Amino acid sequence: MSGIWFTEKQTENFGITMKVNRTLHTEQTDFQKLDMVETEEWGNMLLLDDMVMTSKVDEFVYHEMVAHVPLFTHPNPENVLVVGGGDGGVIREVLKHPSVKKATLVEIDGKVIEYSKKFLPEIAGTLEDPRVDVQVDDGFLHIAQSENVYDVIMVDSTEPVGPAVNLFTKGFYAGISKALKEDGIFVAQTDNPWFKADLIRDVQRDVKEIFPITRLYIANIPTYPSGMWTFTVGSKKHDPIEVSEERFHEIDTKYYTKELHKAAFALPKFVKDLTE
Amino acid sequence: MSGIWFTEKQTENFGITMKVNRTLHTEQTDFQKLDMVETEEWGNMLLLDDMVMTSKVDEFVYHEMVAHVPLFTHPNPENVLVVGGGDGGVIREVLKHPSVKKATLVEIDGKVIEYSKKFLPEIAGTLEDPRVDVQVDDGFLHIAQSENVYDVIMVDSTEPVGPAVNLFTKGFYAGISKALKEDGIFVAQTDNPWFKADLIRDVQRDVKEIFPITRLYIANIPTYPSGMWTFTVGSKKHDPIEVSEERFHEIDTKYYTKELHKAAFALPKFVKDLTE
Amino acid sequence: MSGIWFTEKQTENFGITMKVNRTLHTEQTDFQKLDMVETEEWGNMLLLDDMVMTSKVDEFVYHEMVAHVPLFTHPNPENVLVVGGGDGGVIREVLKHPSVKKATLVEIDGKVIEYSKKFLPEIAGTLEDPRVDVQVDDGFLHIAQSENVYDVIMVDSTEPVGPAVNLFTKGFYAGISKALKEDGIFVAQTDNPWFKADLIRDVQRDVKEIFPITRLYIANIPTYPSGMWTFTVGSKKHDPIEVSEERFHEIDTKYYTKELHKAAFALPKFVKDLTE
Amino acid sequence: MSGIWFTEKQTENFGITMKVNRTLHTEQTDFQKLDMVETEEWGNMLLLDDMVMTSKVDEFVYHEMVAHVPLFTHPNPENVLVVGGGDGGVIREVLKHPSVKKATLVEIDGKVIEYSKKFLPEIAGTLEDPRVDVQVDDGFLHIAQSENVYDVIMVDSTEPVGPAVNLFTKGFYAGISKALKEDGIFVAQTDNPWFKADLIRDVQRDVKEIFPITRLYIANIPTYPSGMWTFTVGSKKHDPIEVSEERFHEIDTKYYTKELHKAAFALPKFVKDLTE
Repeated sequence: MSGIWFTEKQTENFGITMKVNRTLHTEQTDFQKLDMVETEEWGNMLLLDDMVMTSKVDEFVYHEMVAHVPLFTHPNPENVLVVGGGDGGVIREVLKHPSVKKATLVEIDGKVIEYSKKFLPEIAGTLEDPRVDVQVDDGFLHIAQSENVYDVIMVDSTEPVGPAVNLFTKGFYAGISKALKEDGIFVAQTDNPWFKADLIRDVQRDVKEIFPITRLYIANIPTYPSGMWTFTVGSKKHDPIEVSEERFHEIDTKYYTKELHKAAFALPKFVKDLTE
Repeated sequence: MSGIWFTEKQTENFGITMKVNRTLHTEQTDFQKLDMVETEEWGNMLLLDDMVMTSKVDEFVYHEMVAHVPLFTHPNPENVLVVGGGDGGVIREVLKHPSVKKATLVEIDGKVIEYSKKFLPEIAGTLEDPRVDVQVDDGFLHIAQSENVYDVIMVDSTEPVGPAVNLFTKGFYAGISKALKEDGIFVAQTDNPWFKADLIRDVQRDVKEIFPITRLYIANIPTYPSGMWTFTVGSKKHDPIEVSEERFHEIDTKYYTKELHKAAFALPKFVKDLTE
Repeated sequence: MSGIWFTEKQTENFGITMKVNRTLHTEQTDFQKLDMVETEEWGNMLLLDDMVMTSKVDEFVYHEMVAHVPLFTHPNPENVLVVGGGDGGVIREVLKHPSVKKATLVEIDGKVIEYSKKFLPEIAGTLEDPRVDVQVDDGFLHIAQSENVYDVIMVDSTEPVGPAVNLFTKGFYAGISKALKEDGIFVAQTDNPWFKADLIRDVQRDVKEIFPITRLYIANIPTYPSGMWTFTVGSKKHDPIEVSEERFHEIDTKYYTKELHKAAFALPKFVKDLTE
Repeated sequence: MSGIWFTEKQTENFGITMKVNRTLHTEQTDFQKLDMVETEEWGNMLLLDDMVMTSKVDEFVYHEMVAHVPLFTHPNPENVLVVGGGDGGVIREVLKHPSVKKATLVEIDGKVIEYSKKFLPEIAGTLEDPRVDVQVDDGFLHIAQSENVYDVIMVDSTEPVGPAVNLFTKGFYAGISKALKEDGIFVAQTDNPWFKADLIRDVQRDVKEIFPITRLYIANIPTYPSGMWTFTVGSKKHDPIEVSEERFHEIDTKYYTKELHKAAFALPKFVKDLTE
């Protein structure tokens, strides 16, 4: 295994490792260490603080599952907010929904946007769309200053360390509730149940105290810890597991299907236990 | 990261790595290199030819999903065969079904059984059950010599290299069909769709030519390549996705639920495409 | 590179890595983490706190160079002390000198002795020699309580962390001076000049304040950081670089020769600078 | 140890590993894979086929020891040839000798020169000196076509794989003899005695059959396998170990000294045995 490899210790005692052909950009931004690398297995890949954020090969899972589950749950999503997500992948999926009139991206680190556009154009390419409003700003503050504005909010953050730590607090979820319209819905990535069970349980508890409908769903992301990723949904009115068949129209996806939408809420027992 | 770590290159350019506290047993058997190691993250773990086979912490996913899907599909499984599976995990799950009168294990490498009993007693403990017939023998030959015998056959093999290469051939599936009773059902682990898409497509094609009902389902196994594992089902009569509600009785599981049974057949689009 | 490998980070950003066939013993002793491992390249190897201490294949360099340089410098070494060195390698070399009547080993961690005897008998085998007095005790205290006793003292310690931290202090060197006879000589391993230049410079300065003759010599040890190891000599009377030819008699060695004895004091310029 | 690390397996079962801040250039040239990387420990580093060639931090050892030993042995070196050595380090040292009127560099891979100039200017900077003739050509052919031309030839090649395989043959040494003047001298890097004892023994045997004076000397290079590197000298008339004191004049070095010149020929016994 001579050569250059990137290793992410996903826990103290476990990690993934992959061959790196070259680094494309390396920088300590104001918020985090940013590396854009070309990997042999996953294509171009964005790393923040030595953690895998997204890669050309498997990015579709995360971005489709963050976007389409809430957008197909809400009957008429028009005004959408993405917190974080500077790589542009969630926005790309959001724009596939014709009902969406405006999509706001609030990313704290402008460098993430800049280098995603440069090295991950398949992901970031639609950030130039006229429906998109890109703001380099603190998502926590943006939420705090918004009221009754959004139909759907997606929180596409890093792990709850560094700049993202505020995005896993009850105060943030309360702010999201306020920022949503009366039938609004939000989803946040909430890590994996193998190594971060406590986080999932805590978020479920916090969101339940604020949103009448709280759900958890899962997707397989091979470059994320354990390969099983969870998403927490808080909804004021519409239940994602009861979405009617006719709401599904044809969109072009590689992971999401209408059957999988529902199946993603069927949790392994040890994960389901975290939600009760 | 000073210390002793085990790394499995799951592809030429990607792998997992984990801290090893100690090796418990190391041996070149007649069939493969066998290592039993104590890992910090996953507890005791069985490696064959430097590939993760099973671990104390996450074994339940694989063993439950191999066993319960076909056993809850068949209306009255009495005579069950496990090919491979010398660690005993599938047998343990099989024995949770009161209808099962006999469970035969045909494992080619007796050392796998011996050291699983010694170092993974939570997995291998029920191999001593009176309903179990353990045979150290070639599963391919056992199948070839069996006719109209089994209700359910589970193929719990290693990757299609080394001793397991015959277990991924059309001839083997034809033998399984012959060995099954007229309403029999079989399931085989068929690797992951991220790195082994061709294998899954080939097996689906081969099984479809022999079995009227062919299905694919998935489970998340964090120590297996990509974290998403597939299982191919071939069935003569009973369709695993149409199993009736009343067939589910209470068993003690950590991963399998009756909702998950059905959801496991809702495939991500790029996986579904492999089955068509 | 699938398999089990031991990696020692020799600095924050550099290390060595080697294949491990099996662990032979693993224990947290009262003083340190002890691992005895079987490596493919270096044979059985002793690790303390995840740092390579000695291996079957390359141990001869260190042990010969610690022992023979001072013993061939002193005209008649009879009473010898080894501080640390529980693996027994230095003692084995000391006993090759017929003038030696008594060799005392003071090792703080009895487990090092126990498992070296068991798994490194080629190194530890002569600890049973009647001339050897093995004491499981604190070398610092032993030195503090000794006066005008030893002809030669060898300090075979670990890095200046953990139990060995006292063994790199000026107080310790003063104690050694007191413990030595009037023409006594001592040698201590003092790490490598690539990563630990400050340590070498500090020890040289401290020893010079106590001993009229202070020298530094080097040897190549492939499993130690940088491959270049230094040894600091403090001597009351005999200068190791002026040793007369006739003092050399034939001993069986693999690294040490009389020519190398002198050559080992010819330092690379950047190392020589540390001694001035 | 999350992050990007370069690992060189120096043998099947042993290697070094180091943190990489970024890759500066990566290319498959006509001859080899070339990577220029910025490492944390060793500064900028040139890799060929995933093997360390030279680094900013430790390059001085190799380059000084290749150049100064033969140049201080020869009484009046005027015309010097370097085979390989496209990084320019040997040339830089050669030019420190005022007697040298012309230094020819014959490097087969022009990309090595190009990217060393760009990313290792401290090493390659003197390639622009008017006394230097840089030829991008096959060193083996250059030697074959030269007769009675050079005072000193230095072979600064990669391992005997790939483009360098011809440079370790008896035919090549015969060509060198022909290319040298009647009192000429040559030196070649000949790997390390821990992992490549056979190579050293073979080269010694071959060179002895052609040159009346054959010697081996060593230096410590921390980023090369085992940290101990050997250089084989073949000389028609002047013996490098008998060089007179007055030949040494002051040059600016970090490793080489006149004492070390001689000491470098005092070999560890197991290395000395390879020369007999």
